Amino acid sequence: MGTTQLEAVQEPKYWHLKTVLNDALDSEFEVGEILPNERDLAARFGVARATLRQALEQLELEGRLQRRRGVGTTVAPPRMGVAVGPTTNAWPGAGRDSWNTIGCVEAPAPAPVAALLGTGPDDAVHTIRRERVMQGQSVATELLYVPPASVPNLSGLLTPATHAQAVLRELHTLELDGDDRAVELGSARAEDAKQLDRLPGAPVLVLTTRYYAGGRVAAASVATYRADTCRLTFGDSGAVEVTHHQPESRQAS
Amino acid sequence: MGTTQLEAVQEPKYWHLKTVLNDALDSEFEVGEILPNERDLAARFGVARATLRQALEQLELEGRLQRRRGVGTTVAPPRMGVAVGPTTNAWPGAGRDSWNTIGCVEAPAPAPVAALLGTGPDDAVHTIRRERVMQGQSVATELLYVPPASVPNLSGLLTPATHAQAVLRELHTLELDGDDRAVELGSARAEDAKQLDRLPGAPVLVLTTRYYAGGRVAAASVATYRADTCRLTFGDSGAVEVTHHQPESRQAS
Repeated sequence: MGTTQLEAVQEPKYWHLKTVLNDALDSEFEVGEILPNERDLAARFGVARATLRQALEQLELEGRLQRRRGVGTTVAPPRMGVAVGPTTNAWPGAGRDSWNTIGCVEAPAPAPVAALLGTGPDDAVHTIRRERVMQGQSVATELLYVPPASVPNLSGLLTPATHAQAVLRELHTLELDGDDRAVELGSARAEDAKQLDRLPGAPVLVLTTRYYAGGRVAAASVATYRADTCRLTFGDSGAVEVTHHQPESRQAS
Repeated sequence: MGTTQLEAVQEPKYWHLKTVLNDALDSEFEVGEILPNERDLAARFGVARATLRQALEQLELEGRLQRRRGVGTTVAPPRMGVAVGPTTNAWPGAGRDSWNTIGCVEAPAPAPVAALLGTGPDDAVHTIRRERVMQGQSVATELLYVPPASVPNLSGLLTPATHAQAVLRELHTLELDGDDRAVELGSARAEDAKQLDRLPGAPVLVLTTRYYAGGRVAAASVATYRADTCRLTFGDSGAVEVTHHQPESRQAS
């Protein structure tokens, strides 16, 4: 994605290298195996290290490789299917829920979230941080925003230890009319990156959910999923069991 | 995402620059405006061009900037909400559909798709290429795979002009039991990139859909959405109208 590529030809050199590397991964390496260092790899394939890096970045985007701090670059296992739908008609934290609650503060929501909630830019909202763990790995971190108007009967006596649960308990007394979700590409912010064991800026899938009750948005959440290890699944027939390879294009025109 | 960053500190220099640039975009630039060239920007912020490029790449990942061939780097408009759910219980190409059919071939499906369909590695399946256009822009390209077993009454007399429509027509005679979807990060393959007016390797959101009929997967599709301009929306309450800013993290722990 370097700027200079924008002026380059349609099929840059790293692109060919990526294909060659991909085949080598299939035939010579096992999942979890550590790749040779960049110098050796560049020498083996007769390319500049910059070219090699671009190819490795592509393979990381596609979920074929993982960069792990203190370990190096390893062959990635297939991505995990993480169910984020269908519309479950359940409040966050209600019943069976794969999220751990980490904490809660009262603070103004970021502008885009305030716009979703219809709160003013300086209005404090309950902000619950949660974490989703699968197979022993932190796969997502979430901020759930609940305006005070949605939980009017919340007791005034809140301690850091009880705040999140008290808000969720009040929220669960509302009748949930439905929710909707949006997925987009983002880059991990510092705090999220730390929680996900990624570097700031790592590509992530950002899932924004609006929860409706009483004809308005009663809560909203912004969840940040690791894009390298997760595949978000929607629908009621179980996870789509595609492998981590994106299928090759076929000429169909 | 460069390899060297893995050994770097938790908050690399480009990360700070990204925040500064982001503020500058808000205060000094309009949507669609072309940014100064890299040399000038690097000089203005007193950073190396490599650092600047990393920051620009981050902002591109977050949908704040767009690189356009022959134009340069521009301030991106908010991402488009593209509805990809909820489960519509409609076959592709049935009724109102925002997709244009481009062509159809018979060819073996890529291994992961063959696994979804339960076809053998050398079994030819009908492969329909479609394109989704929104606001005059190609936002997604799709390959829809239909095994011959799903369309047994298809006439043997198919021409390139009639192939796709004939397959879809037969498919529509089946009763659709349901579908499920998965979204993951990918990189644009050469042919898809060309159709989407992107360079090969550009980050894309890959949506894989399985269509169920008669207790099995009757068809599967792999759609590649531009990650820079699209936000995929699921749910029945309309698109989530978040802006293209990913909300700032709040301390909630």
